[in-house]
Amino acid sequence: MADWFNTPAAKLNTDAQTAAETRQRMLTKPTGALGDLENLAIKLAAMQGVEKPTMNHIHICIFAGDHGVAALGVSAFPQAVTTEMVKNFARGGAAICVLAKNLNAKLDVVNLGTVNDPGVFSNVVDQRIASSTANFTKTAAMSEKQFNQALNIGRQSVERAATDKCDLFIGGEMGIGNTTSATAIAAALLNRPAKDIIGPGTGIDDEGIKRKLQVINDGLKLHENQLNNPAKVLRCLGGFEIAALTGSYLACAQVGRPVLIDGFISSVAALCASKINPAANNWFLYSHNSAEPGHKHILTALNARPILNLGMRLGEGSGAAVAASILRSACELHNNMATFEEAGVSEKDT
Amino acid sequence: MADWFNTPAAKLNTDAQTAAETRQRMLTKPTGALGDLENLAIKLAAMQGVEKPTMNHIHICIFAGDHGVAALGVSAFPQAVTTEMVKNFARGGAAICVLAKNLNAKLDVVNLGTVNDPGVFSNVVDQRIASSTANFTKTAAMSEKQFNQALNIGRQSVERAATDKCDLFIGGEMGIGNTTSATAIAAALLNRPAKDIIGPGTGIDDEGIKRKLQVINDGLKLHENQLNNPAKVLRCLGGFEIAALTGSYLACAQVGRPVLIDGFISSVAALCASKINPAANNWFLYSHNSAEPGHKHILTALNARPILNLGMRLGEGSGAAVAASILRSACELHNNMATFEEAGVSEKDT
Repeated sequence: MADWFNTPAAKLNTDAQTAAETRQRMLTKPTGALGDLENLAIKLAAMQGVEKPTMNHIHICIFAGDHGVAALGVSAFPQAVTTEMVKNFARGGAAICVLAKNLNAKLDVVNLGTVNDPGVFSNVVDQRIASSTANFTKTAAMSEKQFNQALNIGRQSVERAATDKCDLFIGGEMGIGNTTSATAIAAALLNRPAKDIIGPGTGIDDEGIKRKLQVINDGLKLHENQLNNPAKVLRCLGGFEIAALTGSYLACAQVGRPVLIDGFISSVAALCASKINPAANNWFLYSHNSAEPGHKHILTALNARPILNLGMRLGEGSGAAVAASILRSACELHNNMATFEEAGVSEKDT
Repeated sequence: MADWFNTPAAKLNTDAQTAAETRQRMLTKPTGALGDLENLAIKLAAMQGVEKPTMNHIHICIFAGDHGVAALGVSAFPQAVTTEMVKNFARGGAAICVLAKNLNAKLDVVNLGTVNDPGVFSNVVDQRIASSTANFTKTAAMSEKQFNQALNIGRQSVERAATDKCDLFIGGEMGIGNTTSATAIAAALLNRPAKDIIGPGTGIDDEGIKRKLQVINDGLKLHENQLNNPAKVLRCLGGFEIAALTGSYLACAQVGRPVLIDGFISSVAALCASKINPAANNWFLYSHNSAEPGHKHILTALNARPILNLGMRLGEGSGAAVAASILRSACELHNNMATFEEAGVSEKDT
């Protein structure tokens, strides 16, 4: 395991949190009337270490990688789609590109390993580790070396984010077959049967779900002696992009940068990060409840209260990018509303 | 009743709806993966009559008015706050001002009658009908003439919106005591006991809620012979701002303009509009579940599925303005994502 893994998470700034709580009580509204928007602004104040948190510079990083298990018929889409979507990210046609533009966010795309070569794009970081992970029903998905490479690539994306001003980090993923991998990881880390967590992913039919469940259970059986350690679970059953997400989330917690977690796959990466370093979860906000049925078990384990519930299940960081506009509203209200004193508005009768 | 009340609602454009549904299936994502965002884009296409709906020009109108029943101790805040908040709206310090700026939306403030004189502001339309409504436990809240004035003021706000390009209309309200009025209206229109709908409003204590319930029940008793007609319910128990909201919502439905309904008070106005003209509800989208406990009964009656659930309870159109950013994301995704063909991405295996 990489050395930096053991670096502790940064501490939240409780002075900034207290200042933000005080400010919320002074704004021209009944206390609590902005509901979760108040709590989100206060949490962001504690994370950013300022009374008035901002949401001007958002950094989105999409990690793409292919999966050995995709050959086993676990997805509704052909494996070529991973590479095709990398091109779509590069050309601005994917959902996350539209949302990033709308947020005026930086969009960083990293190719960790696709079966096909997407070609060269100036806005895609080519960090291919292999053409795909290995089939985890036969061997570990990643070698030790590959696993460390993927974690480091995640950490490097956070270093790139730091070269901009960065108020918020969003990680996203693309990888045909990655709900199979994520479901296997979640089953292992939550110690629940895979059948309680499995779902249709991109939209596989009932026959496909049966195959997918068999693949997951075969993987869990093969690696059962490794499942007592979260990093080993991630190495044996994960994907390059899930490991990179985990590395990026851990690095954000270490440098003290707020993270907005996307949906099912991203939450599994957040679960890995939290199992490796429980204090990392202090740096995570949760964007939405995915339509993928197992997401609720993962959110419960993370004590997460997502912002949105829109039935999304796309990945790519798309749910987080939609929810980021809510964080922006929360910050704008917190920073720019008048206080009772400034506005000459009477306070509550006592 | 004003003549224009009987004008039927505009028809939704089913050709545009079909074109939008077709487009959604062509975009580079599994069908349904954007969840409610897909349905919202399709609904807006049907309302705006175009395949690609837009959310560039948002018109927000805040209606302010005082309530005769405020003298009976039904609110946690003094009645002077209605006037003080009109000034806060004018000066840009209120929540809705911050959100409107963030959306680049037009903000229109209308004073229909406050007990105190806020003074002259260039950005407040002074259409004061009286210093407040009458105490509805003694007489009808509004005379016939006042009621028609308030409805017409609402309609005029929609006419002002039409002078801009207007993709969406949001109505908001301010009026100390107006959850008392709205709860009385809802109890009458839903034929439910007020105790099932009542809540703390801006944050009144248990003693205050007892007084508030007595006031509502006194009003319902006094006007019981009028409660078989929604317009009479609104005139006897309503507020100037609630009647203006109702008028604006009906006018939007008549001219075929999408409306995003805010919280408890606004939903009661939407209920009035829908009871007067059931087809009006085709033009309403619902922004959020209010923390005010009775809201759920009103939403159920309107067959509404709100976008957000953030525990907000401020009014002023604030919940709708937060949700408008979600509508904007839905439109941007619908309009600007690449299709499978454009991006050269493979479709689902068959």
